[in-house]
Amino acid sequence: MDKSEAVLKLLLEAVQSSIARQAQQESNEIPVGVSNRHIHLSQSDLNSLFGEGCQLTKMKELSQPGQYACKETVTICGPKGAIEKVRVLGPVRSKTQVEVLTGDCFKLGVPAQARLSGELTGTPGITIIGPKGSVQTTEGLIVAQRHIHMTPADAQRFGVADGQTVSIKAGGPKGGIYSNVAVRANDASALECHLDTEEANAMGLGSSAKITIVK
Amino acid sequence: MDKSEAVLKLLLEAVQSSIARQAQQESNEIPVGVSNRHIHLSQSDLNSLFGEGCQLTKMKELSQPGQYACKETVTICGPKGAIEKVRVLGPVRSKTQVEVLTGDCFKLGVPAQARLSGELTGTPGITIIGPKGSVQTTEGLIVAQRHIHMTPADAQRFGVADGQTVSIKAGGPKGGIYSNVAVRANDASALECHLDTEEANAMGLGSSAKITIVK
Repeated sequence: MDKSEAVLKLLLEAVQSSIARQAQQESNEIPVGVSNRHIHLSQSDLNSLFGEGCQLTKMKELSQPGQYACKETVTICGPKGAIEKVRVLGPVRSKTQVEVLTGDCFKLGVPAQARLSGELTGTPGITIIGPKGSVQTTEGLIVAQRHIHMTPADAQRFGVADGQTVSIKAGGPKGGIYSNVAVRANDASALECHLDTEEANAMGLGSSAKITIVK
Repeated sequence: MDKSEAVLKLLLEAVQSSIARQAQQESNEIPVGVSNRHIHLSQSDLNSLFGEGCQLTKMKELSQPGQYACKETVTICGPKGAIEKVRVLGPVRSKTQVEVLTGDCFKLGVPAQARLSGELTGTPGITIIGPKGSVQTTEGLIVAQRHIHMTPADAQRFGVADGQTVSIKAGGPKGGIYSNVAVRANDASALECHLDTEEANAMGLGSSAKITIVK
C-alpha cells in the first residue's frame, strides 16, 4: 500500500465514522408535537353541544394514527373567564376531556392539574358551550402531562418501558431539561413527544424541533 | 454519661445537623419573579402615545428597586395581529423596549428573539398605539432572556459573576432545568430569577416558587 492509498483509507474511515455517529445521534432524536388547548367529546356531550346525532367533521389528520382535528370548536367557561374557539379533536371518546394550558387555568379560575390523558378522577369540571347547547361537566379538565408516544419497538430501542417517566433534553438558546415526561408505548402510536404550547415556547421548540431522552 | 444522656446527645446532634442542612438549602434558593408581556417607554414615545409632557402614573412597586407598574397600557400591533392592554413599566428609559412572550410573536407575526434587556440591535420593530397617538418603532421587540438579578454579594455567595450564564433547577411535578440563564449582578438589584409567563407555567412555577442554580 503506497502513501496515497493509506491516506485514502484513513479518509474513508473518518467519513464512515462520522456517518455512523450522525446516524446514532439521529436515531436518538424524537420529533416534538406541540399541542394547543383542545377538547375530546363523548357522543352524548357532542349531541348536547352540536345537536342530536351530530357527526364530527374531520379537518386535518394528526400525527397519532386515527386522531384528527375537527371543524367544530366550543367555548369553555370557568368561574373567572371564558376561552373561545377551543378545537374539538376526533374521534369521540367514552368520556369528555378538556386539555388546556396552565395559563388558561388562571383565566378560567380553576386549578391546573397535570394529568395523563384518561386519568380524570378529582380533576375540575367546566362549562362547555356549543352552537346548540351547553354542558356542565363534573370532571375532565386537565393540563396534559408531558409524554412521549412510541411503539413497543421504539421503547425497546430507547431502553424505556410504557408507564415509565423520563427526562428530555432540548438544545438551542432557550434549551434545557424537562423532568417527569411519561412514556406511552403501544402499537397504536407514532413516535412523538407531546408538549403543550407553553412548554414548547418556553424552550423555543417549534414544530420541526427534536428532543432526546436523558435518564 | 448514662444511657439517657447519650440518647439525648445523639438526638440533639441529629436536630442540629438537620437545621444546618435546611439553612444551607434555603440559602441556595432564589425566589422566582414571573414577567408577563410589558413595555418600557422613552419620554419621546410616551409623549406621542399619551400626550406631550405626560407623566407615568405609578400603580405598584416591583421587586427590583425603583421599578414600578403603571396605570397606563398600550396596544401593540404587528403584521399578523394586535395585543391589547400591554402594561407600561416605569420609570421612562432612554429607549423604548417591548418585552413579549414567544407565543405573542406568532400572534403579532414577528420573529421571537431572546435578548437581554437593552440589547436591541437587530430586533424587530412594532407599532405601539396609545390613547393620543401611535409610534412605529424600528427595533426593540424582544423575548426577555431568562436572567437572575442579584447583588455583587449574592454573586460571590453563589460563586457566579455578572454576565455569566448558568442553569437553574426547579422541583415539583412539572420541574426541570433551564439552560442559558444570565446572571445580572449589580448594586441596584434584588435577588430574583425572572422567567416569563410561559417559562414559569411550563415548569408549574407560581409567584412563591424558588429555584436553585446548577453549574
